[in-house]
Amino acid sequence: MLPPGSTIGILGGGQLGRMLVLAAAPLGLKCHVFCPEADAPAFDVCGLRTVAGYDDEAALAAFASAVDVVTTEFENVPARTAEVLAARVPVRPPPRALAVAQDRLLEKSFIHGLGIPVADFAEVGSAEMLTANSAAIGFPQILKTRRLGYDGKGQVRIARADDVAAAWDALGRAPAIIEAVVPFACEVSVILARGSDGVVQAFDITENVHRAGILRTSRVPASVTPDVTEAALAAASKIAVALDYVGVLAVEFFVTAEGDVLVNEIAPRVHNSGHWTIDACGCSQFEAQIRAAAGWPIPVLARHSDAVMENLIGDDVLRVPVLAAEDGARLHLYGKREARAGRKMGHVTRLMVRQ
Amino acid sequence: MLPPGSTIGILGGGQLGRMLVLAAAPLGLKCHVFCPEADAPAFDVCGLRTVAGYDDEAALAAFASAVDVVTTEFENVPARTAEVLAARVPVRPPPRALAVAQDRLLEKSFIHGLGIPVADFAEVGSAEMLTANSAAIGFPQILKTRRLGYDGKGQVRIARADDVAAAWDALGRAPAIIEAVVPFACEVSVILARGSDGVVQAFDITENVHRAGILRTSRVPASVTPDVTEAALAAASKIAVALDYVGVLAVEFFVTAEGDVLVNEIAPRVHNSGHWTIDACGCSQFEAQIRAAAGWPIPVLARHSDAVMENLIGDDVLRVPVLAAEDGARLHLYGKREARAGRKMGHVTRLMVRQ
Repeated sequence: MLPPGSTIGILGGGQLGRMLVLAAAPLGLKCHVFCPEADAPAFDVCGLRTVAGYDDEAALAAFASAVDVVTTEFENVPARTAEVLAARVPVRPPPRALAVAQDRLLEKSFIHGLGIPVADFAEVGSAEMLTANSAAIGFPQILKTRRLGYDGKGQVRIARADDVAAAWDALGRAPAIIEAVVPFACEVSVILARGSDGVVQAFDITENVHRAGILRTSRVPASVTPDVTEAALAAASKIAVALDYVGVLAVEFFVTAEGDVLVNEIAPRVHNSGHWTIDACGCSQFEAQIRAAAGWPIPVLARHSDAVMENLIGDDVLRVPVLAAEDGARLHLYGKREARAGRKMGHVTRLMVRQ
Repeated sequence: MLPPGSTIGILGGGQLGRMLVLAAAPLGLKCHVFCPEADAPAFDVCGLRTVAGYDDEAALAAFASAVDVVTTEFENVPARTAEVLAARVPVRPPPRALAVAQDRLLEKSFIHGLGIPVADFAEVGSAEMLTANSAAIGFPQILKTRRLGYDGKGQVRIARADDVAAAWDALGRAPAIIEAVVPFACEVSVILARGSDGVVQAFDITENVHRAGILRTSRVPASVTPDVTEAALAAASKIAVALDYVGVLAVEFFVTAEGDVLVNEIAPRVHNSGHWTIDACGCSQFEAQIRAAAGWPIPVLARHSDAVMENLIGDDVLRVPVLAAEDGARLHLYGKREARAGRKMGHVTRLMVRQ
């Protein structure tokens, strides 16, 4: 257990990094944020900072010497970055989890290899593989780049065989995978924390609604059966253990009308669908991540209220004056100056105290 | 209403300033902390800072130009400091409230002048006044310096007439007041917020226990009668209105066995006895202060749980490993390096969800 006064290094200075810093402070833990953008949201709330590229090995080495442990707000940490850091200081979650989660082919293969259901998928590394595997998967299907996809970026839905070649061109012929479209009844996610002692605990399962590939709302409790809940929790826990994971792990699932539960993707970090935990739980996902990184015990991840989290995307932020006056609306803005379309500017959580 | 992205200037970088910064961030409001000590607790969580003395007029002028409004974490702001700032930028709470609260004679006279009960008190400005007024008040009594008293500092209890001269010597013959000792049954406080619209709202009244002049625990609900609650709320509200107050105001009371309610002192700021609001309310005292300073609406100050707040003073901080593992104990450490005797290092709040 790192003593109060220790410093947590955080790779990435977006809203997740910002909320990690805010969660670390009450534990008496300092944060040092490493981020290439000087106006990153986390810097508003952080006394220690490095503004440098993830490939700046001198800056990474200095960062590693200045902190007691490194954690991250995103999975797309370059392998070499993780390597440079891990040689000098503990990195939690483990670099292998980042490597698996940042490559959709590795991710799907790994999860499938654990015996956990996923959508049918196949590799696309060449025009020949594309033609053969696309036909084998069937339509509709989704073509996704292996790397750097988030919020619906780097993917194209393909309705029929004639559109396959154009879709691959649209993604720049980058290494990709094809996945069968899952006709889901709903989407849920499990946010779990695995401590440095190996104990896994999960927050209550969350029901999510996406629009245009971007999460719009998350709701607890989810309207799913106990069997679905159990299957999702078991799958998420199995993944965490197999990765020898330490920290918060998010696993997103499709749930079909028949009650099948398929993993969509994993995120080796705090997750947008867990933001409700700030307001509805004693220990939020952000505090759980900091505690895991610092080797602190993680308390029971109970929630005291039902909750609905709504993302504020792009111009949604114009509603702030109204939301600021709404009793019970817990506002969380990320300090971003420019409200571009599709950009996550903040979120609002509404609690319903349980009767 | 200052828009998100605006900057709140905070005078003082102690734990109260730190918790104000943490409360401002989710509202998308930046903070700029002004504090003479470079290692002040608030600087850990603040991107904008000025390290300078409160008498550094050039630094104050630059600070005033860099922020949209100024608020404070303490009442002992020098009059000239408040003047320099108020000439350039709105200061909330108003400088007059600071002036009244930082001088025990002005404070008691002001409250007494509103028709609100206080302990019998008298001015001590000379040896002659001391002798005459001490006899008039009777024993036991407390001699307190007019200025710079907090956490039991700057005061001496006097049991009998023979000890009066020595007590005044002990306080350096500084301008002082004498107060009658109130034989109280319990101590309570009201933490209220008055918005820029003049509307007063109070958190639930809090019952406090001090030891050696320092707050040890605060508890809600307080075990007092509805009449006591009503008297305390009415007195606190009257004080806020009379000061044309904007922000969070704390008023501490003695409650006697007979149910008399006397004001002990006021603090024109967030207050230690309101720390439980972070964990037990949707909007904490810190968020209420930031909202008031920024001209934002203040939501209903309801609490969702009963709570007990315990201060961690000096070596209490050695209990952190145990507290970190206690389910339901919400830890708040202030990032102070050195655990001196009597120093507030943090607090812990335990919630009891209401049945």
